[in-house]
Amino acid sequence: MSESRIDYSLYLVTDRGLSRGRSTLEIVRAAVRGGVTCVQLREKTGSTRGFIEEAVSVKAFLNSCGVPLIINDRVDVAMAVGADGVHLGQSDMPLAAARPLVGASMVIGISAESIRDAVAAQAAGADYLGVSPVFTTPTKADTAAPLGLAGLRAIREAVKTPLVAIGGLNCSNAAEAIRNGADGIAVVSAIVAAEDPEQAARAIRREIDTARRPWV
Amino acid sequence: MSESRIDYSLYLVTDRGLSRGRSTLEIVRAAVRGGVTCVQLREKTGSTRGFIEEAVSVKAFLNSCGVPLIINDRVDVAMAVGADGVHLGQSDMPLAAARPLVGASMVIGISAESIRDAVAAQAAGADYLGVSPVFTTPTKADTAAPLGLAGLRAIREAVKTPLVAIGGLNCSNAAEAIRNGADGIAVVSAIVAAEDPEQAARAIRREIDTARRPWV
Repeated sequence: MSESRIDYSLYLVTDRGLSRGRSTLEIVRAAVRGGVTCVQLREKTGSTRGFIEEAVSVKAFLNSCGVPLIINDRVDVAMAVGADGVHLGQSDMPLAAARPLVGASMVIGISAESIRDAVAAQAAGADYLGVSPVFTTPTKADTAAPLGLAGLRAIREAVKTPLVAIGGLNCSNAAEAIRNGADGIAVVSAIVAAEDPEQAARAIRREIDTARRPWV
Repeated sequence: MSESRIDYSLYLVTDRGLSRGRSTLEIVRAAVRGGVTCVQLREKTGSTRGFIEEAVSVKAFLNSCGVPLIINDRVDVAMAVGADGVHLGQSDMPLAAARPLVGASMVIGISAESIRDAVAAQAAGADYLGVSPVFTTPTKADTAAPLGLAGLRAIREAVKTPLVAIGGLNCSNAAEAIRNGADGIAVVSAIVAAEDPEQAARAIRREIDTARRPWV
């Protein structure tokens, strides 16, 4: 396991299909201005070359502002573009196969839908866990039943690995996810599909920051 | 460029959609019994984990009979399973990005649809070229106009890299592709969709062997 150097606070996951015709780079730039601390590029359609070209352009921007880039699923794309991390779902490459390819310095995030997934991923050396779905999500059709805040908290009690809550997260529930053990909030549609992604990101970031400083 | 250790003579490319409900492993076993010398696994749908699991099972069989395994597109899958090679189309990872990841020992094949593609791929260190489409093919909808035998010959004259002819190849035209400069014949539907893949492979292999020994 590599030392985690990533601030997971507000973790954007891209989705071209929800972007209302705006480019992924355009969404990412706006979201980072609004306070996103980490970006995961997720491209489930299109060619490998197109994914690499997009990742290269997004990475050039992110490097200029010190925000890390994580690639969904494609270990080869992550390696080719020198991404900071790769995110692997339970149907992607197993962590034990990916670690020898990417080495110790690349962050590997694993999707966990249960305590069992989370404990296994921690034991295998995951750098962070994407805990999902915390709430009902419109983004993915194939997910399990929502874990809820109690499910998130139970995973928090079971593992020490940083947890990123994902699934139906938005301005109205980000704070309670933080208070129930999430180290970060992953957002897809609440930013990507927003009329104003920058303002949407800023509002969620404010909720996260406030939830961490209950004394303010 | 690595020393090519692969016999490209009869090069099977899998296609689950054409397999009439038979498993890829079943097709591969029959095709190897019929004389296939090299297998490329091509999986354009399904999960990464599913692709890896299939590749592991096909590789276990191929290792037992000394036939090399090449993975289509997915450099990460090729690395994870320790494949002999990876085949990259013009929309896949560029060779220059893939070589540092896979090292010198893994074979990299590149699709070439023109003399220009072929010369560029040779210069970049491709281990072999998939020259396509030589004939009209029912397998892929997005290919360029067929090169024909004259186009294959022109590429043969332009490069020294081993050439594998692909696109509409079958028992009736394999021999003329060999006589026009192909080092091997890549076959999809003529084996994968055949009533008897073993017999289909054997018949094509016989054509190839005969075309190489015109004195017999």
